[in-house]
Amino acid sequence: MDYSDVLAAASRIDGLVLRTPVLEVSPGVFFKLELLQHSGSFKVRGAFNRMLSAGELPPSGVIAASGGNHGLAVAHAARELGVRAEIFVPEVTSPVKVAGLAALGAHVTQTGAIYSEAAEAAAKRAAETGALSVHAYDQAEVVAGQGTTGLEIAEQTGGVDTVVVAVGGGGFAAGITLGTSAAPGAESGSASGGASGGGAGAGPRIVAVEPERIPTLREALRAGHPVPVEVSGVAADALGATKLGAIAFEILSSPRVESVLVSDEAIVEARRTLWARHRVAAEPAGATAYAALLAGAYSPAPGERVAVVLCGSNTDPGTLTTP
Amino acid sequence: MDYSDVLAAASRIDGLVLRTPVLEVSPGVFFKLELLQHSGSFKVRGAFNRMLSAGELPPSGVIAASGGNHGLAVAHAARELGVRAEIFVPEVTSPVKVAGLAALGAHVTQTGAIYSEAAEAAAKRAAETGALSVHAYDQAEVVAGQGTTGLEIAEQTGGVDTVVVAVGGGGFAAGITLGTSAAPGAESGSASGGASGGGAGAGPRIVAVEPERIPTLREALRAGHPVPVEVSGVAADALGATKLGAIAFEILSSPRVESVLVSDEAIVEARRTLWARHRVAAEPAGATAYAALLAGAYSPAPGERVAVVLCGSNTDPGTLTTP
Repeated sequence: MDYSDVLAAASRIDGLVLRTPVLEVSPGVFFKLELLQHSGSFKVRGAFNRMLSAGELPPSGVIAASGGNHGLAVAHAARELGVRAEIFVPEVTSPVKVAGLAALGAHVTQTGAIYSEAAEAAAKRAAETGALSVHAYDQAEVVAGQGTTGLEIAEQTGGVDTVVVAVGGGGFAAGITLGTSAAPGAESGSASGGASGGGAGAGPRIVAVEPERIPTLREALRAGHPVPVEVSGVAADALGATKLGAIAFEILSSPRVESVLVSDEAIVEARRTLWARHRVAAEPAGATAYAALLAGAYSPAPGERVAVVLCGSNTDPGTLTTP
Repeated sequence: MDYSDVLAAASRIDGLVLRTPVLEVSPGVFFKLELLQHSGSFKVRGAFNRMLSAGELPPSGVIAASGGNHGLAVAHAARELGVRAEIFVPEVTSPVKVAGLAALGAHVTQTGAIYSEAAEAAAKRAAETGALSVHAYDQAEVVAGQGTTGLEIAEQTGGVDTVVVAVGGGGFAAGITLGTSAAPGAESGSASGGASGGGAGAGPRIVAVEPERIPTLREALRAGHPVPVEVSGVAADALGATKLGAIAFEILSSPRVESVLVSDEAIVEARRTLWARHRVAAEPAGATAYAALLAGAYSPAPGERVAVVLCGSNTDPGTLTTP
């Protein structure tokens, strides 16, 4: 995979996703407001690209396993394209989330005690019906779709030295790494060189931010391949992949990528600050990239141009002002 | 006043206010996200322009009467410029709002049963101390500052046929009318002609939206001059001027301007929809312009390019999902 896959995705999904705005909050510091995207997260980019890459979709439509942002995105994209969507979620999924999926017209099946059991049931069902499976992060079309966010960042900011982005399964960060790889460096140009690996090419530094309690990238880089990690903490509902995707691992194993961890406390504080100071309503995962800046886990150099990707807003807004 | 006053304001306040982003929610329909502005509303634009137009500020600093967005904006601007701010609010002002003003470093005086009594006390105090009075809407520098929003709309959208904006005292709508008066018309060009009045010149149609329960512009246009109206309803905390400003009346008495009323129910529904569909957190006044579109009080023609100004977000986010 490389930059051209992202370009192809952009023309495929054009008009179906929002070109989410960028806000320059201080000189050279940009918020990419991807949390204003349809369905409340970037996930629709990958979902649309996967579906539109498949040619004619089967009568059984599409299928996915997720009670979270990915499920909402697949349900939204299927409705827009007029195809059937089946979403498998574990039995513990809250009635509110099931109702949200059903409101988008999806057929919801609650099965299994934990996510992986729901995912297995979805895979079995897909084999029976021939429905197109849409993975939350480890499919090339999904990664390429998420990467269109990177193209927009490069265009809307006029180029940055650094992109700060949250990592769960890694599809979003990997896509953005590809999508910014042909971007002209910013004039101040402190970041990166011509180093290359896994299609990442040259481009701005990618600061890949994970909660300390879900270090899928950190542990994959340490082990030399994706390995299962324990999943817990405030952002687990959206960043709680048990291991990094294989595609993401290949792309994120690049000298352009810097792995950074943040505490749950830093995420909570970042979420609260985004509302209090900037009137941006983020879910914990959506505030995780900003937490790295706010807590000092990543400190830009003077004059460094930085884009911070705020990626999800599927949250109860009543919790924005409470601990 | 005319377009040149707005241009001058823009260069004066450059770097102190945010260039708030525009989101194209559907082809040709743009949200101007002015609710992401510093202090949560457009009011800082006028406050900065008024203060910076005054030359050296007196040691007694600036003074204003407002328990709402204007008070927050003046307090914010004064803090940024390193000057003293006194804010007068009526006794009924909630402790939360007083604390918010104090947190910005303002000296808060609670006096009078209603707003007009607090305003009288502020005027008396200003006469004693020589502090610079910053009016919420009826000063030329304030109107010109708010108008910089119009310059940005013209630039960021590439030109629209129509701008939809809420009206309270009218300073914001009047400023935007001036600030868009030199804007090139959009190609589809269904709006406006060369008609002119009060500096409004030619430019896009301005749809001036008021709550039915605070019709300051509607009644002023009917009477031929600003007249007091009864003030009530869900948006009264931010749009609750008792009569239109004299400057706003002159500018908004233009064939470019169309007066539209919306019900409180439409405002509440618009606010809820902005969150549910777009993940934008608005206060009732901030959703009032959108209410005109959503409720059909203003219906764009096919192909008409429309900018909807979302102007304030000083709200309890916990109320975004409740009736």
